[in-house]
Amino acid sequence: MATTVASVPDICARAQSAARALAVLPSTVKDTALRGIADALVARTPEILEANARDMEAGRDAGLTSALLDRLALTDGRIAAIAAQVRDIAALADPVGEVVAGERLPNGLDLEKVRVPLGVVAVVYEARPNVTIDAAALCLKSGNAIVLRGSSSAAHSNAVLAGIAADAATAAGVPVGAIALVAGGGREELAQLATQTGVVDLIIPRGGEGLKAALKGVATVPVIFAASGNCHVYVDASGDLDDAEAIVLNAKTQRPGVCNAAETLLVHADAAPAFLPRVLAALRDAGVQLRVDGRTRALAGPLAGELLDATDEDWDTEFLALTLAVGVVDSVQEAIAHVNRHGSGHSEAIITNDVAAARAFERTVDAACVYVNASTRFTDGGEFGMGAEIGNSTQKLHARGPIGLRELCTTKYVVRGDGHVRP
Amino acid sequence: MATTVASVPDICARAQSAARALAVLPSTVKDTALRGIADALVARTPEILEANARDMEAGRDAGLTSALLDRLALTDGRIAAIAAQVRDIAALADPVGEVVAGERLPNGLDLEKVRVPLGVVAVVYEARPNVTIDAAALCLKSGNAIVLRGSSSAAHSNAVLAGIAADAATAAGVPVGAIALVAGGGREELAQLATQTGVVDLIIPRGGEGLKAALKGVATVPVIFAASGNCHVYVDASGDLDDAEAIVLNAKTQRPGVCNAAETLLVHADAAPAFLPRVLAALRDAGVQLRVDGRTRALAGPLAGELLDATDEDWDTEFLALTLAVGVVDSVQEAIAHVNRHGSGHSEAIITNDVAAARAFERTVDAACVYVNASTRFTDGGEFGMGAEIGNSTQKLHARGPIGLRELCTTKYVVRGDGHVRP
Repeated sequence: MATTVASVPDICARAQSAARALAVLPSTVKDTALRGIADALVARTPEILEANARDMEAGRDAGLTSALLDRLALTDGRIAAIAAQVRDIAALADPVGEVVAGERLPNGLDLEKVRVPLGVVAVVYEARPNVTIDAAALCLKSGNAIVLRGSSSAAHSNAVLAGIAADAATAAGVPVGAIALVAGGGREELAQLATQTGVVDLIIPRGGEGLKAALKGVATVPVIFAASGNCHVYVDASGDLDDAEAIVLNAKTQRPGVCNAAETLLVHADAAPAFLPRVLAALRDAGVQLRVDGRTRALAGPLAGELLDATDEDWDTEFLALTLAVGVVDSVQEAIAHVNRHGSGHSEAIITNDVAAARAFERTVDAACVYVNASTRFTDGGEFGMGAEIGNSTQKLHARGPIGLRELCTTKYVVRGDGHVRP
Repeated sequence: MATTVASVPDICARAQSAARALAVLPSTVKDTALRGIADALVARTPEILEANARDMEAGRDAGLTSALLDRLALTDGRIAAIAAQVRDIAALADPVGEVVAGERLPNGLDLEKVRVPLGVVAVVYEARPNVTIDAAALCLKSGNAIVLRGSSSAAHSNAVLAGIAADAATAAGVPVGAIALVAGGGREELAQLATQTGVVDLIIPRGGEGLKAALKGVATVPVIFAASGNCHVYVDASGDLDDAEAIVLNAKTQRPGVCNAAETLLVHADAAPAFLPRVLAALRDAGVQLRVDGRTRALAGPLAGELLDATDEDWDTEFLALTLAVGVVDSVQEAIAHVNRHGSGHSEAIITNDVAAARAFERTVDAACVYVNASTRFTDGGEFGMGAEIGNSTQKLHARGPIGLRELCTTKYVVRGDGHVRP
């Protein structure tokens, strides 16, 4: 693949040139390209597996943890799943050209606000080679050129995957340069990519806090930071305790390592005597380590001896593990204040049967997603009917919540007159 | 006014606390507050004029130019106009609570995407004291607390204006601290304000390139930079030449010092022999200095001797004055390429009667606003029916084009279930 030997500025300039043509490419061409990519991934699976085996071998030699090796590993099944995801993206509605708003102004000018691609999107990511294809497919569908920068540990896998995607896209009529991979996975390439002002329109990091911190220090182009999630479940005095227990367990244990998992349980004092003993036992049985305040301990009954004391820091911690902080509050207002003080603005849930409490929580909690009687785990582009996502934003500007196809776009005003001048 | 003696972090923390309450304040309360501000501006005009006289005197002593003194000056008429603008903002629809999208998901969850205030908006500005009230009114209407930081040359005027606004707002039930002015107009206050991460949600500079550059260097909170505009008018082969002449004159001369004024005229070679002599004469008669390419000079007839040669730099320059660069191109594609290379992505116009040319220009020009047969001067929140604007963005993220009430908001997903857990 020629793109892997070019310099970062050259790759980005070529991507910008491709983006101009890609922005007006009909959906049919983009969808044909996406299906072509899916076909090619399946057809060229042996090639992908061979490259992945080289990365895996290097990873084992370098002493990568088994968790990291698992994230790096590709199999027939995983490649088929990646291809299926690309087909799903092809089947989504094209966000480009959607008229977001429009009206005839009093002076007779026709004003339309139209969704258009951002231009060039850079995605920097770690380990998981599937991101190469997921991100490329979302950008292609939304009419954006993509410049990928993966980690060096997945260099062989990423190069083959990006090459397959670029070849299949080009064969379908997508401009050359629309899908490009930066060869090096180092900090220097990251810094170059993050400073292509006027060329790269957005950079999205998908990775850990180290990657985000590295980017924050150098980026001059716009960045959307994928979110960390210190999420809460608050069980109100009036909450249904069966629902509450199911939701707490789901939010904490279904997939503890993701950003929409709950990290703190807050229980109204009136519900606490009945609810805490049962939910703490259920959580303990599910293998959750519990870090509790004094009021929770006092109501924990026989479990009290197994509980840890919550530190001040625990309320601010995204454990990303089977660990939960638990506290008792005296009102929905106290719960809201706790959430707004300690939360990261990601996903927050109230379990209640009280209309006023639900309304207060919905309106006053400052977060991307607020749930009433549902698990925080639903925060996801797929679950929200957006089809797929490239991440989840807790920023307030541009995109808040899942970043799907529409969030990879901007808008343009088109104004049509017949010789109009401003009086 | 107590707020003028507090530290920047204290003012911002108080604003954040006010913002939480302000976010759920009914429109009626906000509108009553806005009308109260308008009434108070009129009633307390002598106080405002007295403070302004002190700034004017200091400005004259400091040798401010007459243009700067004019921007600083307040009169009965100007204060009445500011008050009228506040009443206009009160009459606009409240953007907060608008359900932007909503659906029932297949699993029965009800998903709503609701418009909510950003929280705390900081506005940093130069000279013009009217911005104090304009910005405060837009932020109050959109449910945001505002922290203002004006220039030291307008310190007395701004302090009285902000005090009047804060008093009238508080009297109507707006939380204390929702309208605050930072006392100092120095770079230190700017840097403090721009680094209140997690407290200030957005900072908007309204001023010259020096202010923007100072902010760019220090800001860690999100910034929307008000745009510079290197705008073009392209007269296509098929363009109506009467319309074209009227639009070029309007776009260049109606108000040359603003960002949506035209800076370059491009003319199709087929239209140039008929159009250039008349438009150049009309522009010359309107006092416009013309900087032209060789092909334009060759067609300029008797005017040729009065024309300057356009330098490479001229095509990239926002003159903000009665100066226009003029060039001849051979096709709409060449015009589009010129605009995308030299433009700042603000407002771009084509004058044409050719459907294919109009469509190519609309779709391929990469700018916030694209005009067909209308003047670039229409790019304005008021003209676009948004009621008022706090600036104009050429960024692609969050807001592109006029920044009105909706653009001062973010969204929140509210998801309602009945015990839903993720399978």
